[in-house]
Amino acid sequence: ARSYNITLLPGDGIGPEVVAVAKDVLSLAGALEGKLIRVELRFQEKLMGGSALDATGVPLPDETLAAARDSDAVLLGAIGGYKWDNNEKHLKPETGLLQLRAGLRVFANLRPAAVLPQLVDASTLKKEVAEGVDIMVVRELTGGIYFGKPRGFGTNDNGEETGFNTEVYSASEIDRIARVAFEVARKRRGKLCSVDKANVLEASMLWRRRVTALASEFPDIELSHMYVDNAAMQLVRNPKQFDTIVTNNIFGDILSDEASMITGSIGMLPSASVGESGPSLFEPIHGSAPDIAGQDKANPLATILSAAMLLRYGLGEENAAKRIEAAVTETLNQGFRTGDIYSPGTTLVGCKRMGEEVLKTV
Amino acid sequence: ARSYNITLLPGDGIGPEVVAVAKDVLSLAGALEGKLIRVELRFQEKLMGGSALDATGVPLPDETLAAARDSDAVLLGAIGGYKWDNNEKHLKPETGLLQLRAGLRVFANLRPAAVLPQLVDASTLKKEVAEGVDIMVVRELTGGIYFGKPRGFGTNDNGEETGFNTEVYSASEIDRIARVAFEVARKRRGKLCSVDKANVLEASMLWRRRVTALASEFPDIELSHMYVDNAAMQLVRNPKQFDTIVTNNIFGDILSDEASMITGSIGMLPSASVGESGPSLFEPIHGSAPDIAGQDKANPLATILSAAMLLRYGLGEENAAKRIEAAVTETLNQGFRTGDIYSPGTTLVGCKRMGEEVLKTV
Ligand SMILES: CC(C)[C@H](C(=O)O)[C@@H](O)C(=O)O
Ligand SMILES: CC(C)[C@H](C(=O)O)[C@@H](O)C(=O)O
Repeated sequence: ARSYNITLLPGDGIGPEVVAVAKDVLSLAGALEGKLIRVELRFQEKLMGGSALDATGVPLPDETLAAARDSDAVLLGAIGGYKWDNNEKHLKPETGLLQLRAGLRVFANLRPAAVLPQLVDASTLKKEVAEGVDIMVVRELTGGIYFGKPRGFGTNDNGEETGFNTEVYSASEIDRIARVAFEVARKRRGKLCSVDKANVLEASMLWRRRVTALASEFPDIELSHMYVDNAAMQLVRNPKQFDTIVTNNIFGDILSDEASMITGSIGMLPSASVGESGPSLFEPIHGSAPDIAGQDKANPLATILSAAMLLRYGLGEENAAKRIEAAVTETLNQGFRTGDIYSPGTTLVGCKRMGEEVLKTV
Repeated sequence: ARSYNITLLPGDGIGPEVVAVAKDVLSLAGALEGKLIRVELRFQEKLMGGSALDATGVPLPDETLAAARDSDAVLLGAIGGYKWDNNEKHLKPETGLLQLRAGLRVFANLRPAAVLPQLVDASTLKKEVAEGVDIMVVRELTGGIYFGKPRGFGTNDNGEETGFNTEVYSASEIDRIARVAFEVARKRRGKLCSVDKANVLEASMLWRRRVTALASEFPDIELSHMYVDNAAMQLVRNPKQFDTIVTNNIFGDILSDEASMITGSIGMLPSASVGESGPSLFEPIHGSAPDIAGQDKANPLATILSAAMLLRYGLGEENAAKRIEAAVTETLNQGFRTGDIYSPGTTLVGCKRMGEEVLKTV
């Protein structure tokens, strides 16, 4: 028997709805896989984000981090909501997410943005521009301006209040994320575009220098460099030019969201955050969507596909992962759509029903 | 007689071609305006960017900055090119541009991104998404991570090399750019969206706090806040939701380029950079396009429209500005297009010819 411990972090907003559905899909895929060798998935649910704040006073309780660390993989729904938006920094749901990423040391965030043939109309880009887009953004996740010190509030020479943050990267931080990106590109179409602002920022100059130096270890990969402002344009102009993109934490935050919106189906997109060792973190890239929370309207497919990534990259259960991905494709082929990807001629369903349809085809 | 001194900074790549055309258009518009009262435009051309580097060893010679400071307005073409890309920081063309912005204290960069009815097909976005888009990005231009200190290269506790920059804003820096943005929004459709990353960065938390506080002085303006990752998505999903956007230097760099590409006609877009007092700086938002430099292929309309902004905002010559804008519209209506905005059924022309056609209709 192969048995795994999975920590579920439903979080806030639509998080609990989509995680509940993904859990059922995971269980079934595991059970079906286990006909020859038993595959046992054990789940534990923990508090995280705003719901943890309300219950315990902190956005990432020690118990949650300890449980996540001790498990084989972590599946997160979404965190945040208007209710906590004006909280002080250490009491923000987002701070809990940053603590979780740092605590698990998952420095590499893989965000695929691919346009599915069934959903090409969901993109706001013209069909000929959108179809065939298949980008992987590799975002550095535990460094840069998100974590750099010094940070805080101060007073300048004129006695005025200031707010400040530090964008900082060390050579080894750049090298390890670049290695992941080169490896990812190797399993894809062999093209890597490193995005920076090396015409202005020293942190980017070091980034470019280290990435360039590493390229000699990956002679089969075609490496290019692009400034972040140009990348933001090129994603709109001709997204098909990109295969794998590697970039820092804040640029990755912006560009991966832009890339995902180009697919038109952000409710479909999973992500994985991995480190050198220890459990990886899987989550849909969409947010907690407080406006539709509890209304059974959310699209659970991003979380279901995150569960597939969890099986593949987190547990090495490739077959079970494929089973889920095939079920999602089949469900889309059957015409089922949640509101965010609905188009005339398809069948509008809610979150639960979408989950049931996927379960039927798993 | 009204007489003005204008400093022309042709710069690199296609800069000299587009500035030459814009200069002719400016001269003619000035001369025609001057039938009742003589309007005299005096031009002086100065070195800047890579061409200044090659000629003088620095990207912004003192003489250039002094001339720009002494003039009534400055028109810049574009700077940069592959040739200088690996230069050390103080020898980069971009550094010259940053020195010029700082030297002129032009802290507010106004970047319109509007889809012209004649060019809606040039956008990669679907017609119904692109048509009617009319956004003004107000970007802070002399602060933030572009100028923050400390910056540079260092060594961390492990003895590894680091690269670092500081994102910093003071209360008054935020207030003055926010005021400009509120005023701009007032002259437009009365909606202002402030973009930040206040869920993570202290510099953004102060930004949001100050902008929010200022709102009471502008009760007629509808203020909203958006995180930068979401803004990057929303620009693709539904750009029509935006009227005026205000944001920091680096987010403005990224989002204004994304917004301009959404119009599909980046070769059409002008910009103005203004301060509290002293000459303003006008430039097309496109780059120096070294790949087509010297081939008479560049679109001069962005620079011509920057010249119109120069007349309006820099010199207060509203009539001459309108004359130029009307001439550009008329030239487009007549079907003339450079390669970047060409579509079947229109007349493909080069940079010079496009200038001649605009001159005919001025
Ligand atoms: C919620 C927020 C802190 C987070 C980030 O900026 O990393 C989110 O936008 C993301 O991309 O996962
Ligand atoms: C050339 C570069 C320094 C500049 C910037 O980043 O400000 C450019 O991208 C711009 O937007 O004007």
